[in-house]
Amino acid sequence: MNLTEHEKANKIKAAIHDIPDFPQPGILFRDITPVLADKELFHLAVSIFAERYQKQKIDKIVAVEARGFILGAALAYALNIGFIPVRKPGKLPRQTFQEAYNLEYGNNTLEIHADCFKPGQRVVIIDDVLATGGTAAATAQLVQRVGGEVIEMGFLLELQFLEGRNKLGTTPVFSAIKY
Amino acid sequence: MNLTEHEKANKIKAAIHDIPDFPQPGILFRDITPVLADKELFHLAVSIFAERYQKQKIDKIVAVEARGFILGAALAYALNIGFIPVRKPGKLPRQTFQEAYNLEYGNNTLEIHADCFKPGQRVVIIDDVLATGGTAAATAQLVQRVGGEVIEMGFLLELQFLEGRNKLGTTPVFSAIKY
Repeated sequence: MNLTEHEKANKIKAAIHDIPDFPQPGILFRDITPVLADKELFHLAVSIFAERYQKQKIDKIVAVEARGFILGAALAYALNIGFIPVRKPGKLPRQTFQEAYNLEYGNNTLEIHADCFKPGQRVVIIDDVLATGGTAAATAQLVQRVGGEVIEMGFLLELQFLEGRNKLGTTPVFSAIKY
Repeated sequence: MNLTEHEKANKIKAAIHDIPDFPQPGILFRDITPVLADKELFHLAVSIFAERYQKQKIDKIVAVEARGFILGAALAYALNIGFIPVRKPGKLPRQTFQEAYNLEYGNNTLEIHADCFKPGQRVVIIDDVLATGGTAAATAQLVQRVGGEVIEMGFLLELQFLEGRNKLGTTPVFSAIKY
């Protein structure tokens, strides 16, 4: 079964649950857990990224806790490369770099280990959803502070009406499914 | 390169960083991020579990946020099966089952989607570290409430002096590396 990227994306999109008013009134949450739970759809989701990056000599996958770890770690395994976690403060035990960023309500901080890869290494940042872009922009900053080259940021879903790409400057952005 | 499970475990153990007094004074933290970041060691770590479970007709991998997602999702991909997240309260958008359990200081609650797999399915629970066993025991309870059969709980590391196995009753427990 050799599906095109577009056919894979359509199969995955059909399984995503729309949950109104979660986590807050007025928010339509796109729930990808049915995709993760289905062996065919989970494999298709990872394969979209694996096929995209397998010939690009990527050194590391970077992903943000918690949901980003799921697609990110599976992709790192599929590409046979290393995985670097970006975490909330106080979770990574060695020296870290930090980036603070604004959320709709309040703010957030992310950390990366300062020695997690060698300067000049080629990095893809993976997350499940590109929404406002705040998390993604902070993660790209962290990778660059370690000295990594962000080859692309890859998302399973992009909520285009939130215009997250506008926060990401000239960093290439790929999303498999657009809303 | 066909290493035995024991040889793989020794290679992985040699890369684990020991971090004294993290996250609290008196705690010796075992930092597996150097294993995840190294393509060979990450692949070896996942392969220990993949080889162990590939002939056991496992239906789903269940793992707990956040670190458990890393090995758990990579293993689900390697076995070509589905992945089920167990999360902190308020993160899963559909109907959930909850389990509360005690930590050394205070307590914690975990959730699983009530409809995340079919009753009778064969589940392996994966986490990076077996410590006091509280998280693991709560996760096994959640899987059983959904109707799943816990075939085994698999950990990369086991801190044997904390006697976590004693909290896990008759559920089979495997750990690749013991301290």
